[in-house]
Amino acid sequence: MNQPKGAQSISFGVSPYLLESGSVVGKKESEGPLGNKFDRVSEDDLFGEDTWEAAEGTMQKMACMLALKKAGVQTEKVRFLFGGDLLRQGIATSMGVEALQIPMFGLFGACSTSGEALALAAMATAADYGDYMLAVTSSHFGSAEKEFRFPLGYANQRPLSSTWTVTGSGAFLVGKEKSHVRISGVTIGKIVDYGLKDSQNMGACMAPAACDTIIQNLEDFGRKEDDYDRIITGDLGYVGQSILFDLVRKKGKDIKGNHMDCGILIFDQKTQNTNSGGSGCGCAATTLSAYILPKIASGEWKRVLFVPTGALMSTVSFNEGESVPGIAHAIVLEHC
Amino acid sequence: MNQPKGAQSISFGVSPYLLESGSVVGKKESEGPLGNKFDRVSEDDLFGEDTWEAAEGTMQKMACMLALKKAGVQTEKVRFLFGGDLLRQGIATSMGVEALQIPMFGLFGACSTSGEALALAAMATAADYGDYMLAVTSSHFGSAEKEFRFPLGYANQRPLSSTWTVTGSGAFLVGKEKSHVRISGVTIGKIVDYGLKDSQNMGACMAPAACDTIIQNLEDFGRKEDDYDRIITGDLGYVGQSILFDLVRKKGKDIKGNHMDCGILIFDQKTQNTNSGGSGCGCAATTLSAYILPKIASGEWKRVLFVPTGALMSTVSFNEGESVPGIAHAIVLEHC
Repeated sequence: MNQPKGAQSISFGVSPYLLESGSVVGKKESEGPLGNKFDRVSEDDLFGEDTWEAAEGTMQKMACMLALKKAGVQTEKVRFLFGGDLLRQGIATSMGVEALQIPMFGLFGACSTSGEALALAAMATAADYGDYMLAVTSSHFGSAEKEFRFPLGYANQRPLSSTWTVTGSGAFLVGKEKSHVRISGVTIGKIVDYGLKDSQNMGACMAPAACDTIIQNLEDFGRKEDDYDRIITGDLGYVGQSILFDLVRKKGKDIKGNHMDCGILIFDQKTQNTNSGGSGCGCAATTLSAYILPKIASGEWKRVLFVPTGALMSTVSFNEGESVPGIAHAIVLEHC
Repeated sequence: MNQPKGAQSISFGVSPYLLESGSVVGKKESEGPLGNKFDRVSEDDLFGEDTWEAAEGTMQKMACMLALKKAGVQTEKVRFLFGGDLLRQGIATSMGVEALQIPMFGLFGACSTSGEALALAAMATAADYGDYMLAVTSSHFGSAEKEFRFPLGYANQRPLSSTWTVTGSGAFLVGKEKSHVRISGVTIGKIVDYGLKDSQNMGACMAPAACDTIIQNLEDFGRKEDDYDRIITGDLGYVGQSILFDLVRKKGKDIKGNHMDCGILIFDQKTQNTNSGGSGCGCAATTLSAYILPKIASGEWKRVLFVPTGALMSTVSFNEGESVPGIAHAIVLEHC
């Protein structure tokens, strides 16, 4: 039986499975350390569209179609779709998934949205609300710079703590059929705000939320740090990672030995000028699809805690001097 | 047992109950036909804050606290919160619910968000993921005009098809304890796009989605129009309502006799200059809380289909010439 566990978690009685996934990225991502692992790479970051926003929508559609095709599941069989992106009013998702005509829930959790979508897809599957669910998220360097920062042509300088928004989309098919990756539980995050206001240092804004959710997960499930082969955050980057290590140590835990961060994995900091690392809700999603899931499916990693992290801000809240609160959701993925 | 029903619906085996709700509105709403029914009314539309966005967050927090207080349920007992608003990156919700420290899922479904939040809260409760869930949404005339239209000081003319964004927030406590209103099922909407591009005629953009979800609900549950005492849409307004009647008639159904619309109910068109009616995800939520739920709880209405409607657009998609797709989710509410 499914049951609430501890203060913020759910332990699934009959685990839903992560059946298949699809990853689509842009040119820069294809030149990074994971470049040869993504399903689709586009030399054209507009993906044949006229705008970055439409391009991002197209990536979401492509990623969903890839996951469905690999699993041999028809679109009509998918009961619900859970999707989101970073743009105002989630417009990339609305444009992208419209063509699929799947009943849908629009989500926003900033860069934690892939965790939010996977958690809800797993919860809906475990509750027997349908045989298949889709979870999809995306981000795009062009649309995100326009949304949150400066026009690309302005060529502003980027501080060392800044991150580089990943152009990419990852989609995940969750269902009851057995596969080699099961979702055994989830820990849903609370909003954590340490009062930071620097939108060019997202890692620092999100690290407290990542710490909070990781510690809560260990407590709720009665586990130690090394009960996970890897604890993998979404896009803290180098700056956020070092803060996370400090915060976790203050809680009497140490995750230095088994922590990874998708933002650090996806780009080569030295040759790609990505400063603190990759970010965006396409960062964690494409890294999960292309790099993490194959290692769990093969059994190289038996149990992984996947923790996408989000900075809950808008240009309006930033301009009004509000702080940038963080949120992180954790998904327990196990080899089987 | 919970089970998927038809193509887009869920029928709950053991129904979750809508235990309590809270409604908070601004001055103009208090002067409308439902003015004396809301829980809290503020003469100051800034609710003591410095910005419209912070005011909207404060309304969400107030509405949640009201619902909890009426039910005598402590904040820590609420397992998950499902919330959203109309602003870019859902910033009103992030600011508003932070203080509650409840594990949260951020949502975006434009003005359909109250339906999305209620559906997920009911699904999570029926699946035994916790004893209590909160669903909350809001909108604010000041923040919405700034987000989607013109600065208020510009005093632009409003076309007759335009709607007036409701300043208000409604929160709903869903749980397993028995009350007089049960949520017996939900129908989750697909994105429906007829290609309309007029952001000053949201009713026309959303009516096709409302029709789609209502017809699907009748089909999935094997019901006739008059199996519902009322079918109540979110914010189609007068213009959208007449389009909805036409579209539904083309499907061989007639809902003229039992249709209501929260956008029509909340303002007096003749004296309040609200043109086609009220809108915003605070419109459906506050009307449900203050007007609809008491009638179901008393048994005056035995079964109501509550159908919040959303126009999935942003200023960016509008400026780029994209159409405005619609979405609508339906919640089946029954007296018991």
